[in-house]
Amino acid sequence: MKILGISEKITMAHGSGGSATKKLIEDLFFKYFQNDALDKMEDAAILDIPSDKIAYTTDSFVVTPIFFQGGNIGKLAVCGTLNDLLVMGAEPKYLTAGFILEEGMDIKDLEEIIKSMAQTAKDSGVKIVAGDTKVIEGHGGIYINTSGIGLINNKPFHASNVKPGDAVIVSGPLGNHHACILSHRMNIRNSISSDCAYLGEMVQNMIKAGIDIKTMRDVTRGGLATVLNEIADSSNTTINLKEDSIPVDPEVKSFCDILGLDPLYMANEGKLVCFVAQEDAEKVLNIIKSSKYGEKAAIIAEVLKRENVPVTVTTRIGGKRILNILQGEGLPRIC
Amino acid sequence: MKILGISEKITMAHGSGGSATKKLIEDLFFKYFQNDALDKMEDAAILDIPSDKIAYTTDSFVVTPIFFQGGNIGKLAVCGTLNDLLVMGAEPKYLTAGFILEEGMDIKDLEEIIKSMAQTAKDSGVKIVAGDTKVIEGHGGIYINTSGIGLINNKPFHASNVKPGDAVIVSGPLGNHHACILSHRMNIRNSISSDCAYLGEMVQNMIKAGIDIKTMRDVTRGGLATVLNEIADSSNTTINLKEDSIPVDPEVKSFCDILGLDPLYMANEGKLVCFVAQEDAEKVLNIIKSSKYGEKAAIIAEVLKRENVPVTVTTRIGGKRILNILQGEGLPRIC
Repeated sequence: MKILGISEKITMAHGSGGSATKKLIEDLFFKYFQNDALDKMEDAAILDIPSDKIAYTTDSFVVTPIFFQGGNIGKLAVCGTLNDLLVMGAEPKYLTAGFILEEGMDIKDLEEIIKSMAQTAKDSGVKIVAGDTKVIEGHGGIYINTSGIGLINNKPFHASNVKPGDAVIVSGPLGNHHACILSHRMNIRNSISSDCAYLGEMVQNMIKAGIDIKTMRDVTRGGLATVLNEIADSSNTTINLKEDSIPVDPEVKSFCDILGLDPLYMANEGKLVCFVAQEDAEKVLNIIKSSKYGEKAAIIAEVLKRENVPVTVTTRIGGKRILNILQGEGLPRIC
Repeated sequence: MKILGISEKITMAHGSGGSATKKLIEDLFFKYFQNDALDKMEDAAILDIPSDKIAYTTDSFVVTPIFFQGGNIGKLAVCGTLNDLLVMGAEPKYLTAGFILEEGMDIKDLEEIIKSMAQTAKDSGVKIVAGDTKVIEGHGGIYINTSGIGLINNKPFHASNVKPGDAVIVSGPLGNHHACILSHRMNIRNSISSDCAYLGEMVQNMIKAGIDIKTMRDVTRGGLATVLNEIADSSNTTINLKEDSIPVDPEVKSFCDILGLDPLYMANEGKLVCFVAQEDAEKVLNIIKSSKYGEKAAIIAEVLKRENVPVTVTTRIGGKRILNILQGEGLPRIC
């Protein structure tokens, strides 16, 4: 497929800033990302900001393989940054996309990635308004950075709002993205799919219902264990997790049992953990359960006064253990 | 130097999202980038935006070598994105920084880079408010993405404002960054230094003086030839460049003569080209000349009614030639 009338593979010329770069931008990026701000082709997008406060974030994505069950690096790069804005209580609005392409990359793979970025952005109501492309030596890989802006019209969420007595809700089963990527790498065939998704609907539904959300985080690298430790430290509380309440899909559980993995340390790309007052817990659970991507949500922990350690787990047989943040490597290039 | 109490080199664990990542962030990024928004350690920074309009941009940096005369990849990553905001008529305010580190990178090199990013940001009056770190396999390299937000309080500049009769001013000699990087790669010893710099002062001085700036661009990858072609196309004009008015430092000129390079196609990292009405040209030239990094500015071209081609050059001996945009490669990984 000779999309660019130049070649079927990315060459160093596509990163020159000259005619080949221009053609790449026009034939691929503009074709799919099309919007007023981007189409002006200036050095920066000019945007209206009808709000005094914004949320602003960035994330780079280096996942391998770049295509996997349930998504690809492009979809991940859009969802990941949108979820980071969302969990701060912002309404995601604009994204930028910076591409680092390795020489030799198939242009049809790049087109596939761009198409799914454009589709995910469209489905989420956001625009990709500025971009950049560089080419490096290598073997056809791709790295994507996205940054994002969201408008804040409500009180921003903050970990310091969390108080003893609060309930902790996770929006669905843990470990799917991690198990999916690892299955691809190990060449294991199964039906485990990445949970890669934008969680806007469930959060909007909570806000619409007037829920007082204390704080919220998306559960990515480092897993739930790491996120809970961070929140416990920021709020000076101890979080006690109930082991038998943690949702894990049966196939992911089998996969973890065989390989000795702990879903509490595994990466997810479409899960959030939400802190609310105990009396709101059932209501929030029901809102999440009736929202897209939330049908398997569960109340999994309660917030206690600070004890010796930030996070503990009450095990199935009633014992208690400490849950540290992830030590060492996890799975390299998981996102 | 055991900065992180973990190792002197970047390992895969630094990209895990767990304890090693936390230590890297706290011991290096927070130490140098310190500010209210970043210190909150949330998934996104919460920022006040006292303006209805913003400029928003992104750029990834893959330059090799990562340290060069006059700067390093970090300084470049800050200046590059700030200049992109500046030339849109915005006041740069906030940056994000996404790091992709190759395993084996010296942590003291990383510290050096972060220090100069922090210093450049401070000197430019901007804050680095959000960041991300990933680790990939490799040989100790680094890629940095920066995105940036600037406030727009004036009429934004736009290429379509350019009209026949306008004058074109370049803020200084061309080709220095390109010649510097190439000298390093070829192991040639000379005193050519990258022009890597943030050009805020000269633009602020123009705005303060009430100049009606038609449009402005920073002259990076693809060189002046490429930028002028883009502006001529956007404004439906033809730009006629006077060859003997184009400033080039003598050492860069010798370097180009020997290697057969054309400064008009070479990358710069601290040069802008500015379009103003003919009657403002001398005044603007003097403002730039008396500003930091502008002492060798020159009026180099005039805007004509659209002819057959977007950009022409009147040569030293009075002939005319066409100046196309950069074809092919330029110098890979120049920025």
